[in-house]
Amino acid sequence: MHGEQAARRGSRLDSFIRRLEAQRACLDWAVAAIDGVPGAVVELGLGNGRTYDHLRTRLDGARPIFAFDRHVAAHPACIPDAEHLILGDFRETVAPFAARHAGGIALVHADIGSGDEAATAALARWLGPALTPMLHAGAIVLSDQPLDIARAKPEPLPPDVRPGRYFILRAG
Amino acid sequence: MHGEQAARRGSRLDSFIRRLEAQRACLDWAVAAIDGVPGAVVELGLGNGRTYDHLRTRLDGARPIFAFDRHVAAHPACIPDAEHLILGDFRETVAPFAARHAGGIALVHADIGSGDEAATAALARWLGPALTPMLHAGAIVLSDQPLDIARAKPEPLPPDVRPGRYFILRAG
Repeated sequence: MHGEQAARRGSRLDSFIRRLEAQRACLDWAVAAIDGVPGAVVELGLGNGRTYDHLRTRLDGARPIFAFDRHVAAHPACIPDAEHLILGDFRETVAPFAARHAGGIALVHADIGSGDEAATAALARWLGPALTPMLHAGAIVLSDQPLDIARAKPEPLPPDVRPGRYFILRAG
Repeated sequence: MHGEQAARRGSRLDSFIRRLEAQRACLDWAVAAIDGVPGAVVELGLGNGRTYDHLRTRLDGARPIFAFDRHVAAHPACIPDAEHLILGDFRETVAPFAARHAGGIALVHADIGSGDEAATAALARWLGPALTPMLHAGAIVLSDQPLDIARAKPEPLPPDVRPGRYFILRAG
């Protein structure tokens, strides 16, 4: 049947919805997974602010959230106050933050993929070691890119999330 | 419970997913609803091309789709060929198209809302009468704005679509 073939193939609207649902499933999983882990939350890549708002809503004020971006492009209702907004190049802002918050972070959500595959891969290679000092034991790192964090182990993805769409690590 | 309150309130990610799911439900409903109605399809507002690709996928080549926009901002894979892409201000392009395709259209999807509420309302007021001549008897008009089409009647929205999110008319 034509209709069944089309449904199997799926449209860009279908795959966009699937991608957002996977993102939400991973964020919800991560919020539950840090239940016994003290610390703040880091959103690397504020973007339009939707996932920041999701974490803020699900955490319901229980933890501070620090959001990083090069510049602010988020919806006005999704912009953190000055104390929780770290603007600039990640390669300049993450290391000083990690030193200031050594072991103080329970969850990092890093949504860093861009259209430029080589630049994304280089940023991901750099990011894992740069994040490591801020992670509390048991902290979750959720990323759209594979990250190399020495003392972390992969966690299985939530059901319905396609392998390779997201990567979840738990710090040892 | 905090978690339940947060889930009830919902994040911007939640509401974005809900809006896309409602859009998909309405498009799928419309594709089924024009089953016995001959004619082509009109996408008013190509945008990023996601709903155009959805209609193209679900219709699976069964009907031509004409897409209108001021200029092309769609993903390269979602840009119609020159014969099916009508560029320019709707107020200049729609009336000549309606004259050329009088009674030849089975489905119009009009996603015309912008941040400017007054401009959107004025465009919607103008659009209904301008579309009317192209509609085949039984044609469906699906829009994110209420439209005034003299010989059309409202259809109930698909389940799970909040009233006011979409508007569906069927031409008499």
